[in-house]
Amino acid sequence: MMESEVFASFIFYSTVLIIKMYVLAIITGQVRLRKKAFANPEDALRNGGLQYHREDPDVERCRRAHRNDMENIFPFLFLGAIYSLLDPHPVVARIHFIIFCVGRIIHTVAYLLKLKAPTRSVAYSVAQLPCFSMALQILVAVIKFW
Amino acid sequence: MMESEVFASFIFYSTVLIIKMYVLAIITGQVRLRKKAFANPEDALRNGGLQYHREDPDVERCRRAHRNDMENIFPFLFLGAIYSLLDPHPVVARIHFIIFCVGRIIHTVAYLLKLKAPTRSVAYSVAQLPCFSMALQILVAVIKFW
Amino acid sequence: MMESEVFASFIFYSTVLIIKMYVLAIITGQVRLRKKAFANPEDALRNGGLQYHREDPDVERCRRAHRNDMENIFPFLFLGAIYSLLDPHPVVARIHFIIFCVGRIIHTVAYLLKLKAPTRSVAYSVAQLPCFSMALQILVAVIKFW
Repeated sequence: MMESEVFASFIFYSTVLIIKMYVLAIITGQVRLRKKAFANPEDALRNGGLQYHREDPDVERCRRAHRNDMENIFPFLFLGAIYSLLDPHPVVARIHFIIFCVGRIIHTVAYLLKLKAPTRSVAYSVAQLPCFSMALQILVAVIKFW
Repeated sequence: MMESEVFASFIFYSTVLIIKMYVLAIITGQVRLRKKAFANPEDALRNGGLQYHREDPDVERCRRAHRNDMENIFPFLFLGAIYSLLDPHPVVARIHFIIFCVGRIIHTVAYLLKLKAPTRSVAYSVAQLPCFSMALQILVAVIKFW
Repeated sequence: MMESEVFASFIFYSTVLIIKMYVLAIITGQVRLRKKAFANPEDALRNGGLQYHREDPDVERCRRAHRNDMENIFPFLFLGAIYSLLDPHPVVARIHFIIFCVGRIIHTVAYLLKLKAPTRSVAYSVAQLPCFSMALQILVAVIKFW
């Protein structure tokens, strides 16, 4: 499995995106500390007092970016793995993975840097194209098999 | 792997549910545009002004449906894949997958159409049954192997 | 696949954590009923009236714990599966899985019981260590293969 070129390429881009999500979680924690905005009273107490148990727009922005990642990167981990089993052309497969990976990285950057609309939505939509393509190819392959 | 009847059936229902989630994301975007309720100031600015940077109950409803999907469909993608490796009877396996798939589709419809309680909760609970069943069968198989 | 010791061990801890998440969802529902705090008007109507369509700090605490699980356990399901394919030493692999599993269980307990900070954050950080380790080992293996 690890010796398939397509699968190795899928693994690479998937792992990069998971690390990107971990980095986003770390950034969220740093913004919470810097803006002094904690979701839990016990965290606020440890960091200056209960008045810091509050919401902050920059923290919420990080959380929205992270949630959007979950909505989109997790399904990619599934679709990409199954798609890799369909024996697609390595170059075509890699184009799918790269478009998704770059689209999602731009999405996060656009979210955190508050880039002008519609940068973020365009990045989201472009990243969805390879996902729709893989989902359809998987359905066609399964239906053919039946 | 793709030539196993059980695995093919699992792939089919999983991919249908992922597409269902993608459609829910598109519906959320459409409701945001129609109700003029944007999570980010930069989106509101592009769509009429900062006064549209606000929450809306219909948008929040879509987001709750989507979040519930993540809480339940993503674990199914894992459990179903491992369960398929256990070589279950194809008919029994397919019953597991169909109950989950239909339950989750009814859950989304009940959420978006605000169907009377407890329609949505019943759909959720019924869809959890095959998940619990698969999780237990996986644990039994692993413990037997040890 | 099921006959690999590493993979069986991964499957065991993953399934335990998914069941842990299912239990958390059930607890959330019980807290909603006990505190009479429902996210949807249709649920409130069935449980005493629209005045119970409201937020509650204990419900929100459960939801934050669940969301943090999604952010961390779902990527583990992916990384752990790929890492198992890399043929790691069974003892080393099991140490990775156990640290993650125990860390995440302590995280949930610390969240729900409102344990003093930084118990929860320490559990989170310790559980991330095997994830970072697996992600790096996967990247190294893929890059070597190319």
